[in-house]
Amino acid sequence: MNAIEPIGTIHTPFRELANMPIQPKGAAEVIGTVRLEKQYAAGLADLDGFSHLYLLYLFHQSKRVALEVVPFMDTVKRGVFATRSPLRPNHIGLSIVTLVGVKEPELTVKGIDVLDGTPLLDVKPYIERFDRVADSRSGWMQAGEQEIAAKRSDNRFIS
Amino acid sequence: MNAIEPIGTIHTPFRELANMPIQPKGAAEVIGTVRLEKQYAAGLADLDGFSHLYLLYLFHQSKRVALEVVPFMDTVKRGVFATRSPLRPNHIGLSIVTLVGVKEPELTVKGIDVLDGTPLLDVKPYIERFDRVADSRSGWMQAGEQEIAAKRSDNRFIS
Repeated sequence: MNAIEPIGTIHTPFRELANMPIQPKGAAEVIGTVRLEKQYAAGLADLDGFSHLYLLYLFHQSKRVALEVVPFMDTVKRGVFATRSPLRPNHIGLSIVTLVGVKEPELTVKGIDVLDGTPLLDVKPYIERFDRVADSRSGWMQAGEQEIAAKRSDNRFIS
Repeated sequence: MNAIEPIGTIHTPFRELANMPIQPKGAAEVIGTVRLEKQYAAGLADLDGFSHLYLLYLFHQSKRVALEVVPFMDTVKRGVFATRSPLRPNHIGLSIVTLVGVKEPELTVKGIDVLDGTPLLDVKPYIERFDRVADSRSGWMQAGEQEIAAKRSDNRFIS
């Protein structure tokens, strides 16, 4: 139906899916490069005033869909929409990263938790007035920050 | 390349693009229904423990791409990736909403700012430990909460 095409590629130090940080919080100091196709460079104007970005991308190594998964941070099955697992329908991933620099058509970002070569779908500014959630409940996900930061992936979501 | 197919539909009181709230913060009390296709219902298990969700969806009424746009909250052109405008490549939208209730395959949500009939691509839990940004800068977007809440859309992004 709608044509979704990558607009660029995310480059990171992570060459394989096993043993990666499972979220940006576990990759706080990891630097990556978001390289847009040249024809989209003009769309990056004014982005340098923002400290944080959403990256939308394809979990391109995960071809399988599973409606129930055991998340990295848990030991029992959960509905896939209650997790950030790549095995979701449409295989679209979302990460919030810190913007370090803009040199069109490239962005340097920090706290990136995706595989090298990940196809980029969109870049959106994190806008505090739109996106800040003052109080929230996070259901089954009760791990502490240190536990999340220390957690590494394994092969469970490789197709 | 990757097949992206809607997994459901978002139902809201908004029947036309003009005069809508421009973000969930302007639609704080607006109730909507997120109706997944029945075959995805099992993926909603365990979601009821979360207070907030990300919805990913298609800006299905916007067919045009513009790399520079004048955002609703501004008076000058900005790079589209420094805005949340629908005229972006891939036309994927992102909103954070409050989860009111789950009755598979339907979710009731609050603070929804999209057009009735919007095709749903993904539901992800907002996980405070992953997603909370303590301090951020929001570039050109310096409007206050009241200004955002009061702002309504116009026809500028209709193709």
